[in-house]
Amino acid sequence: MTGTDGPGEAAAGLPDAVSVTAAAGRIAPWVHRTPVLSSRAIDELAGGPVHFKCELFQRSGSFKLRGALSAVTAQLASARRCGVITHSSGNHGAALALAGRLLDVAVTVVVPAGAAACKREAVIRYGARLVDCGPTLAEREAALAELQAETGALFVPPYDHPEVIAGQGTAALELLQDVPAVQTVWVPVGGGGLAAGTVLVCAAAGRCVHAGEPELADDAARSLACGERQPALPPRTVADGLRTALGVCNFEILSDFGLPVTVVSEAQILAAQRLIWQCLKVVAEPSSAVPLAALLAWRAERGPDEVAGIILTGGNVDLPAL
Amino acid sequence: MTGTDGPGEAAAGLPDAVSVTAAAGRIAPWVHRTPVLSSRAIDELAGGPVHFKCELFQRSGSFKLRGALSAVTAQLASARRCGVITHSSGNHGAALALAGRLLDVAVTVVVPAGAAACKREAVIRYGARLVDCGPTLAEREAALAELQAETGALFVPPYDHPEVIAGQGTAALELLQDVPAVQTVWVPVGGGGLAAGTVLVCAAAGRCVHAGEPELADDAARSLACGERQPALPPRTVADGLRTALGVCNFEILSDFGLPVTVVSEAQILAAQRLIWQCLKVVAEPSSAVPLAALLAWRAERGPDEVAGIILTGGNVDLPAL
Repeated sequence: MTGTDGPGEAAAGLPDAVSVTAAAGRIAPWVHRTPVLSSRAIDELAGGPVHFKCELFQRSGSFKLRGALSAVTAQLASARRCGVITHSSGNHGAALALAGRLLDVAVTVVVPAGAAACKREAVIRYGARLVDCGPTLAEREAALAELQAETGALFVPPYDHPEVIAGQGTAALELLQDVPAVQTVWVPVGGGGLAAGTVLVCAAAGRCVHAGEPELADDAARSLACGERQPALPPRTVADGLRTALGVCNFEILSDFGLPVTVVSEAQILAAQRLIWQCLKVVAEPSSAVPLAALLAWRAERGPDEVAGIILTGGNVDLPAL
Repeated sequence: MTGTDGPGEAAAGLPDAVSVTAAAGRIAPWVHRTPVLSSRAIDELAGGPVHFKCELFQRSGSFKLRGALSAVTAQLASARRCGVITHSSGNHGAALALAGRLLDVAVTVVVPAGAAACKREAVIRYGARLVDCGPTLAEREAALAELQAETGALFVPPYDHPEVIAGQGTAALELLQDVPAVQTVWVPVGGGGLAAGTVLVCAAAGRCVHAGEPELADDAARSLACGERQPALPPRTVADGLRTALGVCNFEILSDFGLPVTVVSEAQILAAQRLIWQCLKVVAEPSSAVPLAALLAWRAERGPDEVAGIILTGGNVDLPAL
């Protein structure tokens, strides 16, 4: 499944840094400029300053609103005429639902069995139509194809789409505007929407990017190491936002850039998540903690490094009992 | 135990709004101006806008740093000469430890058995001397008196002290500066340091104050209802920051103002805490959730009200397993 599978008008060629700036302009009226936080305790552990771009405060609870708004605003007339559709077990579904509400576009979200309750509820709260399907990717795609044939809705894929990638890049754009001292931006990599958008921004701005990926969903690390997109393993990681396979456009952008990826264990992810909750006092989902886990693992081997930025991607968790 | 029990130079008479402004000036170099957050989902539930002043992002993890810095800076020469001492099972101990580190003052904190691990650790991390004692107030006071006789350190009580109260008032001062539309400020009441400081600020600014208190530690509600300080019940509430009895100065200020207090159940506190974590994406300790619980309970009876501000007092919790 790639962005060009959908009937989107905008899916033509790879995006670049200019696409990100254009997306930033289109989405500005509807997104929060999220704050950048830091913690002395984490700086000490990391051996240098770490600036956290808190996309968990973004509307819909994650950075995904940026890509969803970017894709819908890029083809707004058709989207209003036909509606939009996606499949998602997570933040992209809620984000597209909210984007539709903000832009007066009808939204359908196909949600596989097993999705987190809070993410299902958000889709409904934002007024989208939620359609249940089986848990596999094949079942999702079949359900989506059927609904799309029925309604003619435009497909807005979660990551493998030029305008989605451009939208996700706007988080790094803001981070570098707000903290120009940042030399390396750390991101998680799942489907690669945020990673690819961040790479476009950082390459143009002369900054490095470094990705973190769960050991149990390390297809991006393997794909980039061997130069060819590798199949994803059955997804078991606690970082539910990163269980997806690297997209096609995404692979191309990350591979051209030579993105370094550090893989981390489940224990490292949970320890980093705990650090974020305890020291930054923000509710970060496990996927959000992956880049901090990677940064700490990397520096434990290589020693202190330059000024780091981390994109804390989202805060949508089914909370533990308090 | 009152502020005037200690040998502090500053414990003369009740503070007023000018004391708060003076404290704000003295502590400005060391405190964060914390952000004010809001959530559309909470606004809908509350039937009107609610602005959360996020003191959980304050250095040391709670508003208590304001009062500790205010008290120490008001008598800095003596504090540097003799050191300072307090007893605390919670945020005041960590706050005084950090204030001492920032101001080059030696700090001793007497910590009763049963204090949360994260709060003990903070005292040590900030470089203070931690002395263990038994769990009762009598044991705390005996341990403190002995150490004070030995060292000559100045006692900085957690809430019953004019300069501590003035310092705590600076949080409401910032809230009203940043969101002038706020008509009522909701605070928790335990010892009454924050409540009294907030009352001083709001009375001068023509705003209302409304307090929330746990049903299981409702000595402030009972004291204010009958016009005389009532003994605290054995503290059992999950809101560990509010288990203390209302202080003497504090009672006088709150009583003169006629502070309304709404008491809330443990279930209401935990539900409000969950809402804060889920909707605002911030880690708030149970005591922090008490004013939101009170606001929701109050409005369920009285209907929507005016623009509200809530001081989210702290974020120091021993986290549940993630």
